Amino acid sequence: MMSQASPPLNSEETNRGMSYAPRSDETILTDPKRQPITVTKRERSMIKAQRPAVIWLTGLSGAGKSTIGNLAERKLLARGAHTILLDGDSLRSGLNEDLGFTSLDRRENIRRVGEVAKLMTEAGLIVICALISPFRAERLVVRRLFEPGDFIEVFVDTPLEACVERDPKGLYKRALARQIENFTGLHQPYEPPERPELILRTLDGSPDQMADRLIEIVQPFVSSF
Amino acid sequence: MMSQASPPLNSEETNRGMSYAPRSDETILTDPKRQPITVTKRERSMIKAQRPAVIWLTGLSGAGKSTIGNLAERKLLARGAHTILLDGDSLRSGLNEDLGFTSLDRRENIRRVGEVAKLMTEAGLIVICALISPFRAERLVVRRLFEPGDFIEVFVDTPLEACVERDPKGLYKRALARQIENFTGLHQPYEPPERPELILRTLDGSPDQMADRLIEIVQPFVSSF
Repeated sequence: MMSQASPPLNSEETNRGMSYAPRSDETILTDPKRQPITVTKRERSMIKAQRPAVIWLTGLSGAGKSTIGNLAERKLLARGAHTILLDGDSLRSGLNEDLGFTSLDRRENIRRVGEVAKLMTEAGLIVICALISPFRAERLVVRRLFEPGDFIEVFVDTPLEACVERDPKGLYKRALARQIENFTGLHQPYEPPERPELILRTLDGSPDQMADRLIEIVQPFVSSF
Repeated sequence: MMSQASPPLNSEETNRGMSYAPRSDETILTDPKRQPITVTKRERSMIKAQRPAVIWLTGLSGAGKSTIGNLAERKLLARGAHTILLDGDSLRSGLNEDLGFTSLDRRENIRRVGEVAKLMTEAGLIVICALISPFRAERLVVRRLFEPGDFIEVFVDTPLEACVERDPKGLYKRALARQIENFTGLHQPYEPPERPELILRTLDGSPDQMADRLIEIVQPFVSSF
């Protein structure tokens, strides 16, 4: 521990003042084992030349972020890309297991995912992040961690009514019954990206078609395309 | 946020009780830019088939962990391995920038590095971690995150007197003047590993020779060796 007389040794004090916007909701009930098309460790080890990037999928709970992210990862793997999928839900059982669901903890949750994504790009990977990340200011903080062009914001645009009807995890039902509070789209706003690199209107096509559109934008990053 | 009536949705409450041993010290003054032989993002992108693993370098401040880690990474890269180096100091300016130097924060620091290393192995990487990590219990917590055989504990064994004399960052000088408190080896114990996978006695050879011994143990993980 530093004595009182010592100067500050890192920037944590100044960084504390950063103005993250509060986050509202995150799907918190997912069992990672239920992800349908998860790429295995062994598969990721089959690796090729590429330029690292972050693909940041934002959208409402149930919009299809994880499904599209998984499908896109599978397609990228088939093209020789080396990828990793960081799913907001899955990280709750590991890196972010110490975090609860207060506004402060939710901000910390996304800050860490951004920092881990940065480390992953340092390792040369194409990183696919799937998080509701409802507020613009918060996504901007993460975007600024990366070189211009290396952060690809993808708005998974599914209307709220469609998400409520779909309700793959039963979360909207519980939120409407007020068993879950501060749920994005119901009790708290979702701020759509103003200038995302890509908008995927999921009602206009199948998840597979959405994933195809997504990997098109990643094409310049993978030399073997 | 969950209502009071809801059941707990993750295991954070139970995990809070885990008994990490307190950490004492960590070299906190390194400028990552000063690492002499850092592998670049572009280089890491040149990737090959391998089996993921974690190489965990533990030892006193100034023992040579980062130097050996960097040299080993360079050598592994030349053999076609895809690696990442997680340096305890460097992470203080990113993922762990919110953490101070209390016992609690130091435990959280190492927990996160372990979790990130796990994510990195999920991505197929060979992960080299360089942290003092002075306590056995704490290192065991990290070891248990991995499959048996995939966690390689390496004791960078440099006698305290040699570290004090070497003092590459001037930390021992400051610690002996009590400008830094709770410094490992001076004010707080360092618990050497009882059964590490490898011991590197740095006085018996050059850093380059130590790195050669280290990559020998990684050989089975890299198919192109």
